[in-house]
Amino acid sequence: MSFRALWQALLPIGRDPGTGGYRRFSWTAADLSCRDWFMTAAAAGGLAAEQDRDGNLWAWWDTAAEAGEADSDRMAGASRAGAVVAGSHLDSVPDGGAFDGPLGVVSAFAAVDALRGRGFTPARPVAVAAFTEEEGARFGVACLGSRLLTGAITAEAARGLRDADGVSLAEAMAAAGADPDLLGPDDELPDRVAAFVELHIEQGRQLVDLNAVIGVGSGIWPHGRWCFDFAGRADHAGTTALPDRRDPMLPFAATAVAARQVAGRHRALATFGKVSVLPGGVNAIPSAVRAWLDARAPDEGGLRSVVERITATAERAAADHGVTVVTVPESFSPPVEFDPALRARLSGALAKTGIRAPVLRTGAGHDAGVLAARIPTAMLFVRNPSGVSHAPREHAAWPDCETGVAALAAAIEELAAA
Amino acid sequence: MSFRALWQALLPIGRDPGTGGYRRFSWTAADLSCRDWFMTAAAAGGLAAEQDRDGNLWAWWDTAAEAGEADSDRMAGASRAGAVVAGSHLDSVPDGGAFDGPLGVVSAFAAVDALRGRGFTPARPVAVAAFTEEEGARFGVACLGSRLLTGAITAEAARGLRDADGVSLAEAMAAAGADPDLLGPDDELPDRVAAFVELHIEQGRQLVDLNAVIGVGSGIWPHGRWCFDFAGRADHAGTTALPDRRDPMLPFAATAVAARQVAGRHRALATFGKVSVLPGGVNAIPSAVRAWLDARAPDEGGLRSVVERITATAERAAADHGVTVVTVPESFSPPVEFDPALRARLSGALAKTGIRAPVLRTGAGHDAGVLAARIPTAMLFVRNPSGVSHAPREHAAWPDCETGVAALAAAIEELAAA
Repeated sequence: MSFRALWQALLPIGRDPGTGGYRRFSWTAADLSCRDWFMTAAAAGGLAAEQDRDGNLWAWWDTAAEAGEADSDRMAGASRAGAVVAGSHLDSVPDGGAFDGPLGVVSAFAAVDALRGRGFTPARPVAVAAFTEEEGARFGVACLGSRLLTGAITAEAARGLRDADGVSLAEAMAAAGADPDLLGPDDELPDRVAAFVELHIEQGRQLVDLNAVIGVGSGIWPHGRWCFDFAGRADHAGTTALPDRRDPMLPFAATAVAARQVAGRHRALATFGKVSVLPGGVNAIPSAVRAWLDARAPDEGGLRSVVERITATAERAAADHGVTVVTVPESFSPPVEFDPALRARLSGALAKTGIRAPVLRTGAGHDAGVLAARIPTAMLFVRNPSGVSHAPREHAAWPDCETGVAALAAAIEELAAA
Repeated sequence: MSFRALWQALLPIGRDPGTGGYRRFSWTAADLSCRDWFMTAAAAGGLAAEQDRDGNLWAWWDTAAEAGEADSDRMAGASRAGAVVAGSHLDSVPDGGAFDGPLGVVSAFAAVDALRGRGFTPARPVAVAAFTEEEGARFGVACLGSRLLTGAITAEAARGLRDADGVSLAEAMAAAGADPDLLGPDDELPDRVAAFVELHIEQGRQLVDLNAVIGVGSGIWPHGRWCFDFAGRADHAGTTALPDRRDPMLPFAATAVAARQVAGRHRALATFGKVSVLPGGVNAIPSAVRAWLDARAPDEGGLRSVVERITATAERAAADHGVTVVTVPESFSPPVEFDPALRARLSGALAKTGIRAPVLRTGAGHDAGVLAARIPTAMLFVRNPSGVSHAPREHAAWPDCETGVAALAAAIEELAAA
């Protein structure tokens, strides 16, 4: 199927008619529809699709099997050694855009289709992959599928993760017909992958400034999430004198203001995008405010320093208001440097195709960053004129998307030719 | 029934087993159970109960009817002229305490019972009342039942109020078997009431400092609710450079910090107890932050000044961050001075009973404050050792509650004796 046909089939799934944004949270009905779309796309492309033990999807172009050289055992295992895999994810943040994730999966299917169409026969297995819960939007841990696959999170810890309604990952998987008992690292599957290439819409405007359509990723900033739990005392907003209050909203507000200032001084990023207030009555002083800090910096020392300063402000402000604060690190991703040799081969292949592709660094985490611990990985970025990301207005132009498919096809051809 | 029996029957209704707080929101199952409790309590006390067009409950001690002096028409109307009414409300804030509201209703039933028990025959009709949605916890307008009854809010505006799930008051009433088409001011009922006395747990610690069990209210501070709508732009928290952001969390945080400072300088109260953040993803810069300000001050000019200064801070901070802010007043209650003659009679009656009752002013709104526009009203407060209000730890000691019943009985006796 063409890029456009695949894209159009995926487009309506999980879209909120009110906001125009996507709500494709893992193991929900929208996610299951995305999985069905993946299976249909694989079948249409003549690829053998399977779901791994962690819910990640794989669609294999088994040329050896096609040539009748392998029995079914070999096809499922050894014959797939040295594979070249392209892909990304299908889940979204709340009210996310259409491109973050899906562009990489659709482009991978379209690239395989284009390679087949021009008679290319890979010397290695090629696959399209879609990883589960990349955004961490439902269970709070980003890149959950690739972390599970590579053992970066234990199956036990993952099974116990809970969504905002208190539903555990194990319960959500079981309800969706998947078996949470199978969760865990796969000792063989990552070893069979020789290279993973993730194409992604750029989440910023570097390519606009560089006047380029495609970029090659150099690495990922270290980043993480910290939960700040401010606990005070619920009281009547109309009768409790100011000195008698223990209002957790006030130290939270002071912390949010400080986080931006600290990040600015350290050339880092700090964001409070999620806040929950209890009990949440207009005329009740809150008993608790829980807020999540997303922080990123060019290097690990800088990130630690930023988070320490924000935490110190939170503790000082909490003490000023008779409130307690507990800071819990929820996830941390060390800096990632993508494989230099792989990056050089990709840059060469793109240059041969006439695609100028400057090197970019990003603050966003990706499955490619997690997989980099086990597999040589690379990233390609497609220009995003507005720079908007994680929002309905996120967008890439059609011709740029087509150039992305051509770039990915060139990358796969380079890597799978021998 | 005794105070204790009435109290124990009401205690389990709408209590959240997790927090220990109450969730008695109007027209929910918990609220309907509270209404059943009222009907049962009225029947046990030999009172004729009815629900008015606005959902407020009344239980009439019709001594004229008991004496066989009135036909049923007179009983329902003219014979109730000049009535003395005591009561409060049964609904709660989210995770509210057991006393705020119910103490006044239970004490009124117990006071009527005590007066009957000692052979008192009122010269006027006496009633116990429970007003609907006093807290405004479900539909956002405090004292909704008494406002509707007295025409302080139109039936049309009330019917269109919506709860957090988008359910309108009209829909909620219909679902609960009540007729929203009947909503609206009652031209006769308020005119038949000669005096309304609301007993309430104190929401602060003035009585503790004054070493008194009971207080008499002098008036209510002007107060209101203002909704601050900060609108920015959703973006990726990991890739959007700080200068490119339009993050509405930052001006909200600056406004919350400023609100406390402004209130402190003006001897007023300002609270942000409810905040909603969209889209609410940890790694997404928010597109919108909506926050509700509860503000109160000793006089109307001071309150206006406080809200103006907070609004000005919000606008300045929003402009600093490329964010827009719209401030919408959601409710406003002018200052209330309770009827001085009625207060004097109550103080005299309490003094005769040996109950010392200093005069208190409060920042909290009450149905007595709304009804004061049409009816002579008064308030009695019962000591609250911790001062905690709108939270599960809100508490009054049993002996103090019994003194409250005695005080209310003395008040009713004084007012209904002739």
